[in-house]
Order: sequence, then C-alpha cells, then structure tokens
Amino acid sequence: MVATDIATRVWNHTFKLDPIVRSLLDTDFYKLLMLQMIWGLHAETDVTFSLINRTKSVRIADEIDEGELRAQLDHARSVRLTKREMIWLAGNSFYGSAQIFRPAFLEWLENFALPEYELRRVDGQFELFFHGPWTHTTMWEIPALAVINELRSRAALRDYGRFELDVLYARAKAKMWEKVERLRRLPALRISDFGTRRRHSFLWQRWCVEALKEGLGESFIGSSNVLLAMETDVEAIGTNAHELPMVMAALAPDDAALRQAPYAILKDWQSYYGGNLLVVLPDAFGTEAFLRNAPDWLTGWTGFRPDSAPPIEGGERILAWWKAHGIDPSDKLLVFSDGMDVEGIEATYRHFEGRSRMSFGWGTNLTNDFRDTEPHGGAGLDAISLVCKVVSANGRPAVKLSDNPAKATGNPAEIERYRRVFDTPANIPRLVRV
Amino acid sequence: MVATDIATRVWNHTFKLDPIVRSLLDTDFYKLLMLQMIWGLHAETDVTFSLINRTKSVRIADEIDEGELRAQLDHARSVRLTKREMIWLAGNSFYGSAQIFRPAFLEWLENFALPEYELRRVDGQFELFFHGPWTHTTMWEIPALAVINELRSRAALRDYGRFELDVLYARAKAKMWEKVERLRRLPALRISDFGTRRRHSFLWQRWCVEALKEGLGESFIGSSNVLLAMETDVEAIGTNAHELPMVMAALAPDDAALRQAPYAILKDWQSYYGGNLLVVLPDAFGTEAFLRNAPDWLTGWTGFRPDSAPPIEGGERILAWWKAHGIDPSDKLLVFSDGMDVEGIEATYRHFEGRSRMSFGWGTNLTNDFRDTEPHGGAGLDAISLVCKVVSANGRPAVKLSDNPAKATGNPAEIERYRRVFDTPANIPRLVRV
Repeated sequence: MVATDIATRVWNHTFKLDPIVRSLLDTDFYKLLMLQMIWGLHAETDVTFSLINRTKSVRIADEIDEGELRAQLDHARSVRLTKREMIWLAGNSFYGSAQIFRPAFLEWLENFALPEYELRRVDGQFELFFHGPWTHTTMWEIPALAVINELRSRAALRDYGRFELDVLYARAKAKMWEKVERLRRLPALRISDFGTRRRHSFLWQRWCVEALKEGLGESFIGSSNVLLAMETDVEAIGTNAHELPMVMAALAPDDAALRQAPYAILKDWQSYYGGNLLVVLPDAFGTEAFLRNAPDWLTGWTGFRPDSAPPIEGGERILAWWKAHGIDPSDKLLVFSDGMDVEGIEATYRHFEGRSRMSFGWGTNLTNDFRDTEPHGGAGLDAISLVCKVVSANGRPAVKLSDNPAKATGNPAEIERYRRVFDTPANIPRLVRV
Repeated sequence: MVATDIATRVWNHTFKLDPIVRSLLDTDFYKLLMLQMIWGLHAETDVTFSLINRTKSVRIADEIDEGELRAQLDHARSVRLTKREMIWLAGNSFYGSAQIFRPAFLEWLENFALPEYELRRVDGQFELFFHGPWTHTTMWEIPALAVINELRSRAALRDYGRFELDVLYARAKAKMWEKVERLRRLPALRISDFGTRRRHSFLWQRWCVEALKEGLGESFIGSSNVLLAMETDVEAIGTNAHELPMVMAALAPDDAALRQAPYAILKDWQSYYGGNLLVVLPDAFGTEAFLRNAPDWLTGWTGFRPDSAPPIEGGERILAWWKAHGIDPSDKLLVFSDGMDVEGIEATYRHFEGRSRMSFGWGTNLTNDFRDTEPHGGAGLDAISLVCKVVSANGRPAVKLSDNPAKATGNPAEIERYRRVFDTPANIPRLVRV
C-alpha cells in the first residue's frame, strides 16, 4: 500500500504562502541584547535601516517577484512572540548569566511587532527602507535579509524537478559533512553558527546546525539564531554589532564627541552586560584608530571581534595592543566572524593556537555554500553580499568605514569627515568576502 | 504545528518484519525468460542451487542473525504473483515482441511459490541450498542473494543515528550522481541496471534506477529487475545465464555430449526467443573453447555477452570471431556486464566506439557502491562477491570454468575433466571483481 497522507498532500499544494520568518526569535541573538539596551537608553531615537546589495551584478529585483517579497515581509509583520518563546527568554541562562533580560523589557517585548517598510523596485534592485524608532527598525535587519536570500534560493530552484532537488541537497549535505570532518581535526576548536542572515533557507540552516551539533560535539558552542538555539537546544551566541557605534557616531554633535562615540557606547554596554558579552567590535571606523585611542578599561573586557580585517592580521593587531597594555592574551578571546570558511578557520586556528583563546562565528559559508551543487551547473544559488545597514539616526547620516574600504557605507562627504576624525586612511579596496 | 502522522509512526516502530522481497517480480528478467524454457523443456530436471561466498574474509553468519535470515526467506516463500503483475507480464511487449510469455506458462506461473530451502551455519558462513525441480529452485537465486546482501547492509547500519544515516545516503547520492554526470558525456551509451542481486537495498536500487532514468535519458535502456521495470516504467532487460549450459553439461552422458552442450542449449533458446534475446553468453567453460567449436548459425545471433574476461580483451576476441566468419561487427552487439564501473565503461566505450554496437549491464558498482560514504570510516557496507550457483543436476555435479579461474565452481575432479574436454587451461587466477 502506498500510504499518501491526503491532508498533507492537499496542504502542500494549496497553501498560499510558505512563510520564511515564522517567529520573531528567528533572528540573531545580539539583536535582542542590543534591543534591550536601545530600549533602555535610546527609546526616543529614530533610526533608518536600508538594504544594500554589494553584489551589484546580481539584479535581485529581476530574480524575485515584488509581490512575493511584500507577502513575506507582511507576514513577518504579523508574527508575535509566543508564550513559550517568552518563557524561554525569561527562564534561560545565557553565557551562564540567569535572567539576562529584565522583566520590564520582556513585558514590552511581548507585544512587539515589526514596523512598516518602504519598498520600491529601481533598475533591477530593490530599495528597501525601515524608518522609525530604533527599538523597532533594528529588528528588521535579520528577517529582511533572510527573506530576500531565501526568496533568491526559491527562485533559483523554481524549475528544478523533484529528483534534481534530491541530488542538489544530497551534494550540499555531502559537502557540508566534508567540512565538519575537517574541522573535527582541530581539537580545541570553538565554533558557532552565524549564518542566519545569509542562509539558503531556514530548513537548510537548521540542518547545518544539527550537523555541527552531531559532528563537532563540544566544539560547537551554539547558534546566533535564537529560534534554532531554542529548538535544537544549544546556546544562543552573540554580543553587539556595528549599529551601536554607527548610531552613536551619527548623533555626536561635534568631532570631539564623534571621536569618543565608539567608547561611550561600550561603557553603556558594560553597564548592561558582563562576562562573555564584553566583546569589543573595534572596526566600525577602523581598528587602528580604535586601538590608538582606546581607554585602558577596555583591557578588562573578555575579547575582541575583528570583523573586517584579514583574520590573522586583525588578530595580531589585537594581540599587540593587549601586550602593549601588559595583558597576557592567553586568557583573552578573539572572535573571528568575517567570511570564514574551513581553510581560513584552519589557518587562523593554527596561527593563534596556544597564544589566545579563539572562537569562530561561521556565516555564509556554513549556511549558504551551494557552489558546485547544481545538477546543471548553474550559479543562481551563489551567495551574494547583501546587508541591511543603518543609514541615518534622527535624520543625521550614518557612516561605517570598517577595515575594508569596500565595506564602507555612508555619503561621501561624511565618509571623508570620519576618515579625518578617526585618521583612518582609505586603503586599497579588497574584494568583499560574502 | 509538527504534523506527526501517528499511525505511520506506530507502524514504523511495531512492525515485525520489514520484508526485503515483496514481489516475485523482484528478480532478474532473464530468470523468467529461462524459466519459460525450463518449464517447457526440462520440467522433470532436478537442480540444486547453492550459496557461495567468494569473499571468505567476510563471515556472513557472524554479521547476520540466522533467525532474521529465516524470517526473510520464509516471507519470500509466502509471496505470490498478484493480478496486476500477471497482467503486466501478459500484456507487455519485451524488446518489441508482444506476448513473449505463452498463456500456458503464465497460467502455471500464477500459482508459483518459492520452494523449501536448507540452511545451516558453519564456521561463520551460511550453507544455503535449494533442492528440487529446476523450475522452482532457479527462482531462488536472485531473492536469496538480495535478501542476504540487504541483511548485511542493515546489520552494518544498525547502530547508526538518524543524522549519520542522512549523511551516508547524501554521500551515496552525490557519488552516484557524479557517475551519472560522467556517463552523460558518452553520447551513444546504452546502459541498463543489472544490480538486483548485489544491491545495498531495494529502495536504494530504486533510487539508482530513477537516477539513471532522470540523468541519462535515452541512454538508459532499462532494468534487469522486473518489478522496478514495471514500477518505474522502463524496459525489462536480460537474456540468459550460465545455469543453462551448466545444467546441460552436467546432464551430458559423455564427453562428446558435454562438448556440444553449450551449443545445444542455444539451439533450444533460439526456438523460444528471437531478436534481441539472441545474445550468447560464451564463457561458461571458457570463451576460447566456445568460439573454437562454435557452429556457423551463431553468426546470425544479435550479440555476445563476454562476462568474465576483461572487457576489452573479451570484446576483441568476439570481434575477431565475427570477422573470421565474414561478419561485419558494426551491426552486432557486445554486452558488457562483469564488474563494470565508470572507468571501465568509459574505456570500453571508447575502445569499441564505431566498431560494434555495445550495451552495458551495470551491477554492483551501480547498486552497492558505498565505499567512503560511512561517516565513521567503516567498511561494513563494502560489497562482497556472493553468488548462488547450480551445483548439481539430477544428482550429477555441475561445473563452471569461466574465463577467470577464480570464478570456477564445481568439484576438482569434474573441473579437471571439463578443462580437458573444453581444452581450457587453468590460467593464473585474477582477483574476482565484485
């Protein structure tokens, strides 16, 4: 007897929408950590986020139907936190700290909904803006990116037959497992999933997280994705992001305040969180400049996350700074999270082994590496460099310089001013790693 | 909502037996073709078949539980042809011939059941015999082998977790598809599935057949497995096997009759079948000897299947024979089916391209190639060389010499006699290819 479940079959063929974002926890953990501080200290600040496609050669709006995109974004706006999600947030310990989220914050969060969006199609690309209170617009970053990336995957797979899909995912699984087997040879590895925003799809990210959990055991320390951390029973991982110094910098009334902005926000962070959450992200306006003027109290923080310099170069710079301040780096932590893949993880691990603690945040090359998996040799599944960045705060333009000039965002005059204030030269652009 | 189908789940966890052979058509097509002739001409002949494990290093009876084996064999004995199977046999055209099976034969077949078996465990191996009328014992060959091979696979996978199984099959699929992509580059390829007896499992064979159908299109000419041919709507492929000359030889009253036996049986075959079914299997007692004494009327047959010589050497020998008889080989057919894998298929294809028609019967390396797929690097899934051969006919010992002395079966004195009668030297044994 062929046992076809009729209800399942009918459902599969008649549902109107296959939602990409089904939970407000389907986002990065650092978003919630930042949100609590934004809610506490910057509830009145308006921040606009904007989609930026750095891979200009890919005309997203030609691949994805605008109506489908709107339907997904509208659906995400209809999602609310559920009772069990709230209970999990309230009851869980994060990095060993119980009740990291304050009751008043959770009470506010309970009714949270994603705010409106502004979308138009311009010359093969989407212009997508989120205007409004920072407490709300910040929460769009991850779901907006995940939605667009998954819609791209679906578009690329639209004409695939059942069997071709089977082969495609078999290859992707085999490929992923080769990576797991290589990483297994690094005994003290600590690695986490940072791949939500660039994922091929939610279900594929979940498979990848299960693969790391199964294959790496203790070396897999968790996922940045809060929903997956909850569902697969692993640690939720993350600290803070560039939007904090970017907004503070945009709001700074003068050059002197601008220069202090990156440190001021870390002072605030320290008042909210401690321990493993004290990780410095130094590159918003150039790591050189950041370290040159960094206050001594930052030596007490757990570690640094060099996020746009090449990992070995970036790590060495931090180690040198610790040593110059009389700090033994072997107790400190370096978090590498920029465009890592197995080769880079191995090289970086071996380079810093025994000199410093390390952990790796593995993103695009974990959750969206479908190169050479398409049965007909297409490239429609290749990941692109898509980001959703702060572009203004209270109407004032925001800027990011980073250690990689190709990643700089903001209007040219403001970028020029930031480069002068932070004494960060415009180096030769490197290719952006996805 | 997680939609677990409760009935399915309970069934999965409570069923008593997962039958390996669920249909009497889950066998090789040539068995049915031979059976019709055996039924017509040799209904009174008793033939004993015996399991032979040529891979002595693998102690099958230590891997497989005897009780499980008995349960599977007993279940196979309980299976009967179904109404739709009978209709398909009666109504289908095979190789373009309508109604290849005669009504009287089908009427007899309708009530067919596999006969008794004799099983014991001796020193880590199973002794498994099938005694009785040739019309019945012949039908055990394929199901017996398929049952034991699948029980070995199940034993090897018994301690695998859900995720490890997922990775294993993903790897096997990716590996299989690489082969398909290579074979796709041979434009005039004609290939069929010959992998029933050595398959990893029924479901895996089905996947492989679907893969060939999807990936090779017209180049995939069908499956030797009758059930899969029916289910996947492809051609059933096959002609005849060594058991025919072996039984005829065993029954030959003297050396002169023995020498003629391989030709006499082909005369009979010709009286039953024509066209594409006229394929000579020349190696039962050595191809050299066969060709040396072959009657001229065999030049009228469609082709040869050299089954134990290296393919290029074996094919050249046949081509030379055709040429010596004034036949243009470009209209003739060479069928290669001994231990083929992609490299061998490519080399053979290129070697004979344009000189003769060719087709390939792909067996073990199609349906049971799990090398390097086990997540923990085991070898429990490696295929072994397991056969089920005629050992006697009407109480007289049977012999096979083949072109590969490692494949010779029979008692030493009889092998000696056959070598003398057929003037087939005992070459240096080659490694048996699975």
